[in-house]
Amino acid sequence: MNHERDFVTAITKKSEDASRWYIDVIKRAELADYSSMKGMMVIRPYGYEIWELIQGQLDRMFKETGHRNAYFPLFIPESFLQKEAEHVEGFAPEVAWVTIGGGEPLEERWAVRPTSEAIICSMYAKWVKSWRDLPLLYNQWANVVRWEKVTRPFLRTTEFLWQEGHTVHATEQEAEEETLRMLDVYRRFAEEYMAIPVLAGQKSESEKFAGAVRTYAIEALMPDGKALQAGTSHFLGQNFAKAFGVRFESQAQTLEYAWQTSWGVSTRLVGALIMTHGDDSGLILPPRLAPIQTVIVPISAGNWQETILPKAVELRDQLRAAGIRVHLDDDDTNTPGWKYAEYEMRGVPVRLEIGPKDIQKGSVVLVNRLNRQKTFVPWGELVPRLTALLEEIQAELFARAVKARAENTTQVGTLDELVAVLEEKRGLVRTGWCGRPECEKPAKERAAATIRIIQGPACPELPKCHCCGGESRRTVLIAKSY
Amino acid sequence: MNHERDFVTAITKKSEDASRWYIDVIKRAELADYSSMKGMMVIRPYGYEIWELIQGQLDRMFKETGHRNAYFPLFIPESFLQKEAEHVEGFAPEVAWVTIGGGEPLEERWAVRPTSEAIICSMYAKWVKSWRDLPLLYNQWANVVRWEKVTRPFLRTTEFLWQEGHTVHATEQEAEEETLRMLDVYRRFAEEYMAIPVLAGQKSESEKFAGAVRTYAIEALMPDGKALQAGTSHFLGQNFAKAFGVRFESQAQTLEYAWQTSWGVSTRLVGALIMTHGDDSGLILPPRLAPIQTVIVPISAGNWQETILPKAVELRDQLRAAGIRVHLDDDDTNTPGWKYAEYEMRGVPVRLEIGPKDIQKGSVVLVNRLNRQKTFVPWGELVPRLTALLEEIQAELFARAVKARAENTTQVGTLDELVAVLEEKRGLVRTGWCGRPECEKPAKERAAATIRIIQGPACPELPKCHCCGGESRRTVLIAKSY
Repeated sequence: MNHERDFVTAITKKSEDASRWYIDVIKRAELADYSSMKGMMVIRPYGYEIWELIQGQLDRMFKETGHRNAYFPLFIPESFLQKEAEHVEGFAPEVAWVTIGGGEPLEERWAVRPTSEAIICSMYAKWVKSWRDLPLLYNQWANVVRWEKVTRPFLRTTEFLWQEGHTVHATEQEAEEETLRMLDVYRRFAEEYMAIPVLAGQKSESEKFAGAVRTYAIEALMPDGKALQAGTSHFLGQNFAKAFGVRFESQAQTLEYAWQTSWGVSTRLVGALIMTHGDDSGLILPPRLAPIQTVIVPISAGNWQETILPKAVELRDQLRAAGIRVHLDDDDTNTPGWKYAEYEMRGVPVRLEIGPKDIQKGSVVLVNRLNRQKTFVPWGELVPRLTALLEEIQAELFARAVKARAENTTQVGTLDELVAVLEEKRGLVRTGWCGRPECEKPAKERAAATIRIIQGPACPELPKCHCCGGESRRTVLIAKSY
Repeated sequence: MNHERDFVTAITKKSEDASRWYIDVIKRAELADYSSMKGMMVIRPYGYEIWELIQGQLDRMFKETGHRNAYFPLFIPESFLQKEAEHVEGFAPEVAWVTIGGGEPLEERWAVRPTSEAIICSMYAKWVKSWRDLPLLYNQWANVVRWEKVTRPFLRTTEFLWQEGHTVHATEQEAEEETLRMLDVYRRFAEEYMAIPVLAGQKSESEKFAGAVRTYAIEALMPDGKALQAGTSHFLGQNFAKAFGVRFESQAQTLEYAWQTSWGVSTRLVGALIMTHGDDSGLILPPRLAPIQTVIVPISAGNWQETILPKAVELRDQLRAAGIRVHLDDDDTNTPGWKYAEYEMRGVPVRLEIGPKDIQKGSVVLVNRLNRQKTFVPWGELVPRLTALLEEIQAELFARAVKARAENTTQVGTLDELVAVLEEKRGLVRTGWCGRPECEKPAKERAAATIRIIQGPACPELPKCHCCGGESRRTVLIAKSY
């Protein structure tokens, strides 16, 4: 905390320019920094602590659903990437290639993994022999590299951290169930922990993962009106099994190709978190993912180190024992006022103030980061009252995000309306679609917008395709996106 | 657990060939597998679970000593590696180079990090401005790549997982204290968690890290008589600070170069664990790092699924609630005897058997993996008795390893004795050394052995240098090594 001693410097107001605010707050709250290599980000401790909390919770959810972690090589021989035709076509342009190792040119160049289907399936082909070996439910926490032209900290970087689940099943139905199960894990995580409402559904053909049969995703709406794909879950069918020879002997003693899935979320989630909840004063972190849930600021007046600090230490230890992530800022070189602004900037959900009057009264002041509302709480009630306040803030952040999304979702019947909405207001546009790829193009050409999610079959209010005016077969959400 | 249905196949006896046993047990217990790329290993779930337990505990110890995690880029521009002369000389021959990205040749090639001093110091130069910013205590969990000619799963692989701590201090003394503090964290972890006794001390000049002023290490003796460097802690002095311009304004308002340390352990620790404790029946995992501390094997006779299984489930839940990592193997397709051998192979410290007689008596049988000793324990006493047994096994493993090391440490006065010992018996050789580099060479040339650790100043029993016969200044431990 002590490696930034400047005064709390002004950041761009989020209400004025969400995009500049995003960059300002990342630098100012020390979440990340740029390295000298284009698109390569450094995640600083405060940002990494958010990622550790995300990782910890997701890892628990993966293990509860029966998955185990493993680790596969960073490199993929070029010939492996080429085995699945769509896969190599999709990823080859984004690859970083290792061509020299140990002072010698390599016989075959190795890709730094952009995703690991190819290397993992080459191992699954060795490990899977019988129906008894299935299902195989593995996940990997790893770094991946995709060469990006336009980058943005957390949201799109050349290297990023992620998890990738890769599962193998004996039947199509089981694999499809797994795909949807993990999509739902992502949805629950986004809503219950990140306090971000998401749309969960299928992607159109043109937006699916290179090599998948079907791609599902969770999509969140950012405050600047752009959609963010926050996680994907792919039903791979037998595509990779056929390319890599992942076969098993069935119970009926026939040799069958296996059915596979893959699914992933990345450090992009940290970007979504920052973007969704912050305000003009800086970050706001949902309590469940805040590295510091409560900061204790002792009012440093008079001989506060004798009169106030001991009680502050006692309360800190009490909160820590109750499982609350608490930080006591007893640094004498900064004023309480400076600290208030500093921890608001860093998005700490609750500030606990304790001064001479509080000592007399046997209470403390809790300040809510969302509205700066103060509550006076007797020492004896601190743990339950603070716990309740943290839960209230978590719920309030989610409610705000739900409201914002509702306000920024517009239903339209025609392409002209769609273009007008996306020009004037942005946000999500709900409309009908006939299902033909050629009817996806005009929205892209005229509004740089794509189908983010197929919400379901055609609905009565939207009977026609927004583009051709023919019969609608799908209700879709269209938006500009990251 | 169910993706290996072969019968428990024979492995080489450890007592006959520890080296072949090591490879056999890794494959058989599904800890790791080879990929198609030379030296690139796949860590399978059971092996990765051991790594997760190592990681979890070390991470707690790092945080308790005030460190925070961060994440720095995978790549390092060649010009950065070249800034510290010794560093580039030491690492350049082992580097994998990325030369093409996004379809274009790079202007400057990028190293896949072999270690991260260069990229991290380039950021520290931006972040460190004042003495108030110090100390800066960061750690990173990451993958690194070093091109290796001879590889061996876990012990030496082209890519490996590790943590690297990188700290910055205002004074030489503080940095030196940090270097030794982390060396001691490693020693404690090795002894208390891995049950492996280690020698902790300084390395000679010829064995130190490329770019360090002094390197300290923990060294363990493996059962095949070779020493294994299990962790290193480097006092970097101002070498990197000068190369990268990591400077700060002191309290006296002068501009000073900072003092730095770095320290790391890797997935090599998993190799040390396997090698140290196994026996002819397979792995033995110390309880504190065993993914499964206790396996419950119900005796599958008669209508066991009605009579025995419900109690087994109840006991499993009870043990799980008590924080014991327990697995109930209720698979009906394998016999209890097969399961006994299987979990012995996998090194599970305690097996819990429960059959018809046990149900009648209200007890279970606990079987100790070390000696197959059986204990009958009433249900009501299970948690405390099992907990005690696990602690006993942990302590016994450490005691065995201490004894083995003592038996394989020989004190010698001369080079001829040293060579004879290392030819006939191997192990650690304790002797005197004058401190001159030329007196390190003969042991290397004649016995392929190096100074593993400088144990301290000359001691009275070893007054002379084993090589030149001159006055000894250091007591050293010499061995062949991995």
